[in-house]
Amino acid sequence: MASNSFGTCFRFTTFGESHGEMMGVVIDGCPAGLELSNDDINIELKLRSPGQNEFISGRKENDIAKIVSGIFEKKTTGTPVTILIENKNYDSSKYEMIKDLYRPGHANYSYLKKYGIYDYRGGGRASARETVCRVAAGAVANKILKHSQIETLAYVKSIGNIVADINTDEAVNLKAKIINSALFCPDQEASGKIETLILKSKQEGDSIGGIVEFMISKVPAGLGDPVYEKFNAKLAYAMMSIPAATGFEIGEGFAAAKVKGSIYNDQPIIDDKQQVTLSSNHSGGILGGISTGMPIIGRVAFKPTPSIFKPQKSVNFKENRKEVFQFPKGAQHDPCVVIRAVPVVEAMCRIVIVDVLLLNRLVRI
Amino acid sequence: MASNSFGTCFRFTTFGESHGEMMGVVIDGCPAGLELSNDDINIELKLRSPGQNEFISGRKENDIAKIVSGIFEKKTTGTPVTILIENKNYDSSKYEMIKDLYRPGHANYSYLKKYGIYDYRGGGRASARETVCRVAAGAVANKILKHSQIETLAYVKSIGNIVADINTDEAVNLKAKIINSALFCPDQEASGKIETLILKSKQEGDSIGGIVEFMISKVPAGLGDPVYEKFNAKLAYAMMSIPAATGFEIGEGFAAAKVKGSIYNDQPIIDDKQQVTLSSNHSGGILGGISTGMPIIGRVAFKPTPSIFKPQKSVNFKENRKEVFQFPKGAQHDPCVVIRAVPVVEAMCRIVIVDVLLLNRLVRI
Amino acid sequence: MASNSFGTCFRFTTFGESHGEMMGVVIDGCPAGLELSNDDINIELKLRSPGQNEFISGRKENDIAKIVSGIFEKKTTGTPVTILIENKNYDSSKYEMIKDLYRPGHANYSYLKKYGIYDYRGGGRASARETVCRVAAGAVANKILKHSQIETLAYVKSIGNIVADINTDEAVNLKAKIINSALFCPDQEASGKIETLILKSKQEGDSIGGIVEFMISKVPAGLGDPVYEKFNAKLAYAMMSIPAATGFEIGEGFAAAKVKGSIYNDQPIIDDKQQVTLSSNHSGGILGGISTGMPIIGRVAFKPTPSIFKPQKSVNFKENRKEVFQFPKGAQHDPCVVIRAVPVVEAMCRIVIVDVLLLNRLVRI
Amino acid sequence: MASNSFGTCFRFTTFGESHGEMMGVVIDGCPAGLELSNDDINIELKLRSPGQNEFISGRKENDIAKIVSGIFEKKTTGTPVTILIENKNYDSSKYEMIKDLYRPGHANYSYLKKYGIYDYRGGGRASARETVCRVAAGAVANKILKHSQIETLAYVKSIGNIVADINTDEAVNLKAKIINSALFCPDQEASGKIETLILKSKQEGDSIGGIVEFMISKVPAGLGDPVYEKFNAKLAYAMMSIPAATGFEIGEGFAAAKVKGSIYNDQPIIDDKQQVTLSSNHSGGILGGISTGMPIIGRVAFKPTPSIFKPQKSVNFKENRKEVFQFPKGAQHDPCVVIRAVPVVEAMCRIVIVDVLLLNRLVRI
Repeated sequence: MASNSFGTCFRFTTFGESHGEMMGVVIDGCPAGLELSNDDINIELKLRSPGQNEFISGRKENDIAKIVSGIFEKKTTGTPVTILIENKNYDSSKYEMIKDLYRPGHANYSYLKKYGIYDYRGGGRASARETVCRVAAGAVANKILKHSQIETLAYVKSIGNIVADINTDEAVNLKAKIINSALFCPDQEASGKIETLILKSKQEGDSIGGIVEFMISKVPAGLGDPVYEKFNAKLAYAMMSIPAATGFEIGEGFAAAKVKGSIYNDQPIIDDKQQVTLSSNHSGGILGGISTGMPIIGRVAFKPTPSIFKPQKSVNFKENRKEVFQFPKGAQHDPCVVIRAVPVVEAMCRIVIVDVLLLNRLVRI
Repeated sequence: MASNSFGTCFRFTTFGESHGEMMGVVIDGCPAGLELSNDDINIELKLRSPGQNEFISGRKENDIAKIVSGIFEKKTTGTPVTILIENKNYDSSKYEMIKDLYRPGHANYSYLKKYGIYDYRGGGRASARETVCRVAAGAVANKILKHSQIETLAYVKSIGNIVADINTDEAVNLKAKIINSALFCPDQEASGKIETLILKSKQEGDSIGGIVEFMISKVPAGLGDPVYEKFNAKLAYAMMSIPAATGFEIGEGFAAAKVKGSIYNDQPIIDDKQQVTLSSNHSGGILGGISTGMPIIGRVAFKPTPSIFKPQKSVNFKENRKEVFQFPKGAQHDPCVVIRAVPVVEAMCRIVIVDVLLLNRLVRI
Repeated sequence: MASNSFGTCFRFTTFGESHGEMMGVVIDGCPAGLELSNDDINIELKLRSPGQNEFISGRKENDIAKIVSGIFEKKTTGTPVTILIENKNYDSSKYEMIKDLYRPGHANYSYLKKYGIYDYRGGGRASARETVCRVAAGAVANKILKHSQIETLAYVKSIGNIVADINTDEAVNLKAKIINSALFCPDQEASGKIETLILKSKQEGDSIGGIVEFMISKVPAGLGDPVYEKFNAKLAYAMMSIPAATGFEIGEGFAAAKVKGSIYNDQPIIDDKQQVTLSSNHSGGILGGISTGMPIIGRVAFKPTPSIFKPQKSVNFKENRKEVFQFPKGAQHDPCVVIRAVPVVEAMCRIVIVDVLLLNRLVRI
Repeated sequence: MASNSFGTCFRFTTFGESHGEMMGVVIDGCPAGLELSNDDINIELKLRSPGQNEFISGRKENDIAKIVSGIFEKKTTGTPVTILIENKNYDSSKYEMIKDLYRPGHANYSYLKKYGIYDYRGGGRASARETVCRVAAGAVANKILKHSQIETLAYVKSIGNIVADINTDEAVNLKAKIINSALFCPDQEASGKIETLILKSKQEGDSIGGIVEFMISKVPAGLGDPVYEKFNAKLAYAMMSIPAATGFEIGEGFAAAKVKGSIYNDQPIIDDKQQVTLSSNHSGGILGGISTGMPIIGRVAFKPTPSIFKPQKSVNFKENRKEVFQFPKGAQHDPCVVIRAVPVVEAMCRIVIVDVLLLNRLVRI
């Protein structure tokens, strides 16, 4: 059964293995008449690329997107927009050595149980390499968003125990700070501590988890659907499908479980411009699955990268015996996936909101 | 666009408003040959019913399910199984008084923005009344699960700041303790404190949030799908669609964001029976979106019930003026939705896992 | 897997067996703000009812639709619109006698092979009784169409070898003639011959097939989708799902297979009002899966009713032996399903076009 | 909204324009463990290729399929199988001359009305070039079918008024005769006449329509679904989505509309091997939407190729004036699309039946 597609109106399908020839995404449902170029996609892929600084994997991916269908005279035509991204500079030899071992914290065990066959080279389809397609689809979604007022942000909220102090009331300033940060973290002080923490993890051959916060601002009220297709449920689904995601929350999230209704409820008021608004935004911009017009704010927790260089227990499944798992020297992994997850989280935000925006065209007679 | 259906293979559609004539669920995709009776459903509805003790709403719903299609000689036939549940003992008059007010923390504001029309009686379709259909569908799913080894559990993990101490290694004992608890909480000591807390909230006309934990045990390895339809993503989607849910996590969840890979990774080992298993279950039974064979464990955070009796700010949208919102005396609301959310969370677990089980029949040639 | 739903944006799910308690349809995706009453549906059900004259089944169904969700203050709210239709006056006793026999031309053989269980009473879910739900959904679709210019027609084109002579250029006149005909056939002369033919079939205990033609007029150009979801493909899918349908064609249909391109091509011209139009409409209003603005015209072939009163060969599957199948005297079947298929074909037209209309809201940026 | 995907379990998405860089198909839902190579696909593409004889277009396409994902050690892994086919030897210059004209019988008019933009080069996405992807997907489906007993056939049944005389009882012999025929027509005598007819059409700069018959044999009883997803409805949907298809019928099809039930009904009997079977196969192997075990037989009507070389009326839409449409000399079009439609019809048969086969794994508890 198909599981490589996402979205209802703005629907895309992705394919490709980490060490295969290419990664690809087919977007079916992109409205006609949208200006779109390779550059629009490459500018976003750049943000996700490894090899840019010492806090992320040293692999040189330098992804280049190429649109091969759906564009005519620089605009979308309503037919599928297909983007191909060649896989380059990969080295499968390191995976030969561990091909008969269950990798600790990795999906090769569960994939083998499911399919009975597994492309172990670079992690195959289970590799986070697939997120390059999410970012590509998100770049197209972002071009659609430019026809609305809506803006998106994502940034590192915490790494390990270091929590950034971020004022979500100033979305405009945040954007600049995020772009200027090697860690996509707008809090300079926390950034410094995080850099130290990541480098220490790296030296130890270890990895560390963290939290990405996202914000979607200038969202009109009335977006999203009731019951099963709530806006927040779609966001949760999108985010929890990102490799290494372990938790999702909207608004106050888990903290909401501790408080009283009289404190939590966002109360309707009339603002200075005689517009109805809410006295607070504890619910994170969504009530009953539908947007309130307040910024949509949430967080995604990521576990530490499972690929580490410390020796771990493992099993050789060909010979059914214990083994020590030691990742080959020279293999390159992110000491902290959270940094590179930031543009992925933002891409998923964009993808979900474009879908929800399009769906809202169908709501009234 | 349709948003009232859930599931792929085991797919159901629900309908009905809180103060309408009936609630209903149509299950399309229930395998043929399953023994199924009204009693199978009513036994589960009973668990969700209000009016059973002082910690939950005093409303008498006493729901009775009636199967009106899809059964022949006590078995399912492969055609849609439809279950109707009459709405009884509702009183819409209390809602007349507040029909022109935006309800604090409630969805009538966002619904009106979306649809331009809203059935305010009892909250209409936005009412948590719709969860009765989730429980009914979950009861059918549970009958299917009886043909497998898989078992599900859900219970109160915390209310406010009171956290239950629960040993997830002893699923069998937990079941009995949960059923015997008025709060669906297997920790007696915590239960006592929670009772006090809820009664205090109730006296104050206030409400309180909490966390429900779920566990799916004896799950075969290899269930779930990669990339966008990860098992954990589906669970997140299911849980975040429950009214008042504000967060979801799998395994260690948000705590995973704080630790190192060398601690977090579940390491493959060979157990006493010479079977491959994992040294720990920090990932909560799912890796790469696919089950590992370890118990699937996660949590859902719920905000406090928005319907409280304290005066709150509001806006009369007919006259565009500020107003004090005071819920009519005698209206009955849960002081803590978390208790009644427990059977709903368990129902969603069952629904998701049945779908994933059926999907796995398609995986190999 | 679900197979009882139809449509993408305007999506409905139906349920119920012929001799069960009720038939039902849940429409999820009906836009909010549509005026809708039970009467809107009952007026259409009336057209499909048996027992109205001697050319159709003498059963008294007298169906009454009741909307039980999705309506507030006489308008749709955007939540699912559910319509229930009670089954009345059915007599399952006649089916007891034949319950162990494969019915010639009927689906009980294939259902049993598929599901291993079958509700034989009145044909269960395989009965054409399910079409009452198609007509109910079509009635709602028709209310949406009233917000557009689009009009639909369906009528008997032929029964056996008697072909009606119908001028498709005069849609307005056709409507009145169809409604005034007991056979839904606007050609009075052919009607007379068809009446004689059907009565003769009935006396012989036999049945006869025929063709229904449909026309959708005032359709704007640009509706429908390319490649797999062509407007004509959707119509074919809709029509071939009607019980007893054996063929579908659009425009000249099978006759197109005999002619040359120079004759068949509809040539673009400029009309008296300086509008672009086509010199002819051989393609039946659709090119490349998308409407041209010309009337959409097609035909659906129906086999003769399988339930006849002549003795036929059969097999008793309980005892695996040959048997003579003789339908119990007094059972009531249509001597010609084609007549009652007319409102069903029109309903499916309306359902498809509403879906296509809604989908077109998504097409451009 | 997405319209470039087909199928439920075996689901594929296609992309590419006639004069774009490549055509592609992503198959999501292909079971793991299937042996699959480029050759498996190329052998089928060869059958569809133009330029093989004088009865079809002289264009040299010589398509070569390349699988770029989803295969590991020569087997499918359960991840998306992507096949790319480069577009070669195309010449867009001829389309420059007619880019502002509505093409008679062609979809550029309806596409422009829908999308407001159209890639006119080679017909863009509206070109029958897209069927190369159907054949590629069908080749993969065929590999799955090899794990069953099921066999498929398609052949020319008629061109213009010349009807082939084909004995559908001898499927085995038919296969060889079809492959040996330049026209995919197993009746040698009719083939001779058809060759003459096509060459005459070609000389006149005209085209001619025809009918393709398909047969699926050794189908187990019990495949397909009731109500809306009937096996015949899915076949109709699949076939009517092929470019230039104007009609579909199953079993006796339109001829069924002329006969009596006593003649049409397939009567259950017990055969020499004491197996239940049917006395005839007028219904074409499907009753109530579900297979009976008899061969599934149906037909698809195709209109004549719209691209002809005779002068036709047209409109220049840039200048809104009448014009004579004259296709540029040297452009190469099929004088009869029906020949090359044969492998496409067979591919769609295979695709539908694989989907239906997989769906049947879900039917019983």
